[in-house]
Amino acid sequence: MLTRRRLLELAAAAGGSAALVKLAGAMQALPDSASAPALRLGAPRGPRKVLVLGAGIAGLVCAYELQRAGYQVRLLEASQRIGGRVLTLRHGDVVDEIGNRQVCRFDKDPNLYFNAGASRIPVSHRRLLDYCRQFGVALETHVNYNPSAWAQYNAAQGSLRLRQREYNADARGFMTELLTRSLPQATLDTPLDAADRSRLADFITQFGDLGSDGRYRGSPARAGYASGGLFDAGVAKPVTPASALLRSGHWQTNMHFGEGEAQSSVLQPVGGMDRIPLAFAHQLKGRIDFGAQVVSIHCNERTVDVRWTQNGKTHQERVDYCLNSIPAHLLAGLDTNLPQPLVARLATRPRGKLAKIAFQMRERFWEQEGIYGGISWTDQDIGQIQYPSHGFHSRKGIVVGGYYLQQDAADRFHVMSAAERISAATTQGTAVHPDYASHIENGVSVAWYRMNHQLGCTARDVDHDTLAVLREPVGRHYLIGDQITAHPGWQESAVLAAHDVLNRLQLREAL
Amino acid sequence: MLTRRRLLELAAAAGGSAALVKLAGAMQALPDSASAPALRLGAPRGPRKVLVLGAGIAGLVCAYELQRAGYQVRLLEASQRIGGRVLTLRHGDVVDEIGNRQVCRFDKDPNLYFNAGASRIPVSHRRLLDYCRQFGVALETHVNYNPSAWAQYNAAQGSLRLRQREYNADARGFMTELLTRSLPQATLDTPLDAADRSRLADFITQFGDLGSDGRYRGSPARAGYASGGLFDAGVAKPVTPASALLRSGHWQTNMHFGEGEAQSSVLQPVGGMDRIPLAFAHQLKGRIDFGAQVVSIHCNERTVDVRWTQNGKTHQERVDYCLNSIPAHLLAGLDTNLPQPLVARLATRPRGKLAKIAFQMRERFWEQEGIYGGISWTDQDIGQIQYPSHGFHSRKGIVVGGYYLQQDAADRFHVMSAAERISAATTQGTAVHPDYASHIENGVSVAWYRMNHQLGCTARDVDHDTLAVLREPVGRHYLIGDQITAHPGWQESAVLAAHDVLNRLQLREAL
Repeated sequence: MLTRRRLLELAAAAGGSAALVKLAGAMQALPDSASAPALRLGAPRGPRKVLVLGAGIAGLVCAYELQRAGYQVRLLEASQRIGGRVLTLRHGDVVDEIGNRQVCRFDKDPNLYFNAGASRIPVSHRRLLDYCRQFGVALETHVNYNPSAWAQYNAAQGSLRLRQREYNADARGFMTELLTRSLPQATLDTPLDAADRSRLADFITQFGDLGSDGRYRGSPARAGYASGGLFDAGVAKPVTPASALLRSGHWQTNMHFGEGEAQSSVLQPVGGMDRIPLAFAHQLKGRIDFGAQVVSIHCNERTVDVRWTQNGKTHQERVDYCLNSIPAHLLAGLDTNLPQPLVARLATRPRGKLAKIAFQMRERFWEQEGIYGGISWTDQDIGQIQYPSHGFHSRKGIVVGGYYLQQDAADRFHVMSAAERISAATTQGTAVHPDYASHIENGVSVAWYRMNHQLGCTARDVDHDTLAVLREPVGRHYLIGDQITAHPGWQESAVLAAHDVLNRLQLREAL
Repeated sequence: MLTRRRLLELAAAAGGSAALVKLAGAMQALPDSASAPALRLGAPRGPRKVLVLGAGIAGLVCAYELQRAGYQVRLLEASQRIGGRVLTLRHGDVVDEIGNRQVCRFDKDPNLYFNAGASRIPVSHRRLLDYCRQFGVALETHVNYNPSAWAQYNAAQGSLRLRQREYNADARGFMTELLTRSLPQATLDTPLDAADRSRLADFITQFGDLGSDGRYRGSPARAGYASGGLFDAGVAKPVTPASALLRSGHWQTNMHFGEGEAQSSVLQPVGGMDRIPLAFAHQLKGRIDFGAQVVSIHCNERTVDVRWTQNGKTHQERVDYCLNSIPAHLLAGLDTNLPQPLVARLATRPRGKLAKIAFQMRERFWEQEGIYGGISWTDQDIGQIQYPSHGFHSRKGIVVGGYYLQQDAADRFHVMSAAERISAATTQGTAVHPDYASHIENGVSVAWYRMNHQLGCTARDVDHDTLAVLREPVGRHYLIGDQITAHPGWQESAVLAAHDVLNRLQLREAL
């Protein structure tokens, strides 16, 4: 079972530096977009050429805003697509995983897509949402927390499989029952007066749905009835023993997932997350070069020289600015004159190993179980099963059959073949839904550590010394992307970081 | 401030019988649709005429199923519309409130509607969802719990206005900090072993997001940062004192609203709740008589005589069965030969006074505050403000500016003119959103106690003796509707009750 310590160790391993990892970080604290300085980019002082490297969100935002302000912009993208870690897979799409190339076999249907990278837009992500509004990207609700979905844990003796509503109600009942017993001791030395103490007793009773005697006997109002409740009084569900709840480990992070940035419900673009990069690209027609692999970067005092290959030819350009989102560990290996302390930091940046697998299901069996969107949680390697928040009651659906957030689980997943992954995730899913396998038509997986042009993804790293080095421009060369923020792995961070770099560029132009 | 006792008194008043009201009832326990017997209706033994009274959900389900099984069905509806308490208001619709007729002034736009009665479909409501699937009624997510929406309470000294995420994080932090202090006393005499006690300590720490010293110092992960968090470590929001949290009363019911049947997210038909009754009506073309007001019902041994007026003429028909959803207190006043004990129960059935008001807003200002659907809660009469779960980022939106669930608040609201209601709800909404008034273009309200042909709505009443009397047929006359269930006020209850009556009718036919 995962102890809290083990969890912190895992988080530390993923983040690279134990001393710097806070549980809050692992649980997605919310950077405050509102307090970040607004973008202020005016026209350049004269003709200015800018090369933007990488057509992920950061590169797209920079290219779009610079073009709008009157800069001459060119965007180089090493792969044949835009979006970076915004990757929506549909019928016929190729997954360019090194040594594990796959073709997505989903039916051709607008509802049948898989957001293999970014899949959620938290409501606090104002900058990204502003672009959605500006470009008319239609949004709909994405359910993160669904109390009707399952909590399935093998760590609990004999294993545990409950609706999350039952788990939550019983956990709160048991905890508040304990507090009720010890309330006089608990409130010693608190500034609560008699009236507040009385309110506190009521608060605890309500919070736990306790009886008037302070005992918890189940909560039909929250966990549901076992049966009845229409013409009769209804039969309460049995209470799960505290020991089983505790041993499951559900409370360690999964129970609280829907409380932070990824709150109980967030947003998603209708039709797939790639609607966002596509909207940017639409504004940048003719300015994006695909298959353009950067070979060298040389920073001069007032210019930057960039060489790249494309279609077997080598190109070189001297530009006024270079904004660069090439992943740190890949950039470290290029021929550059970036200073050694920066290159050293780039080379040792931790690389995340997140991975996902998705299945096309021949029917939406989970909706028959009363599950409309949201997540079932498990302590198996798959970690979770996500149900689509759209296309309700249509025939088929795409289910995320595993999201590998734990380092050890991700390590095991990365080395599997496509078929092995499908097999393993199918077996594990069966512990959550007994008939799981019978509904699966095909599957596709993305292991970001093996993805061409990425070779890794988000790693939590809040080492502010490193961030300060990464943010420092070298001549007219700036790093961009979520990788220069304390909050990587979100499109919003890529946008905020882009705006920050553009504001600094603007200051320089205004000098 | 509402004490728990006062809350129970209010619930008792609304439910009619203090002894029978459980808090669980007030908080919407979930009847178990799965355990209710499935509908089994075969062809009748011979030609059978059935009159169904009332074209709400119960009447529509009965008429649809009977017609399908081969019965001769006619449906009488007193008003000029179908749906009963499923009422969706749009541009130009008339609200037929007695002495308070209103016309809905919303713009003509498919996003601009107001579900003035039923507005949510809980995911456990299998029977209703089955009909949606069968009829192809498109569904989308309806957000009930939104931690980014506000908790605004005048009862807290100096008043309190917090994002619910802040309220929840601070309340949990403060409660778990208390429990941590007293844990040794709290776990005396529990069956937890040493390992479980250790897990329990970790559970409490996680649940409250406490520091390793057991102290709560705010939760950036759940409440958000006050500022920063992108390049720097971020500044935590200040912790609200426990006393203010307790005095607000938010914890009494509102904090827990999204945990039961009305779970954090539920479903709504795309375009308005009346899509459901319209789908039934589509199957019943030519079988619904509008403006048909029942005058008398006479139950014979094997038939029922029903008289009604329509367009100034009186009609009479003798039928094999009469299924009757006329509201109990209205039925009690008709000329019938229903037995006196039944009539007495009908006459004294409590009548709910729920009321709602909605505003057309000239812009979706709440989305600029990071609120996409869900509910802000207040202890003012309006009770809550609901934001639309659809049409994100479009220009205008319909906001439910008050949902009057408390008896005393509803009493005050019912006697107001349409203009007075708008004025009062505008003033109160301003405490939640300071610029509220400036966004309002027009408003429309529905007070169900004054609605023609209804004169009341859902009252919680779980008096099982009365229900038993109401469910008993009188000859070939059956009461139908959510009013004969222990769980009124939901479409699902109307469906389940209809299925129950049809099953009993089937048994009789099979005799």
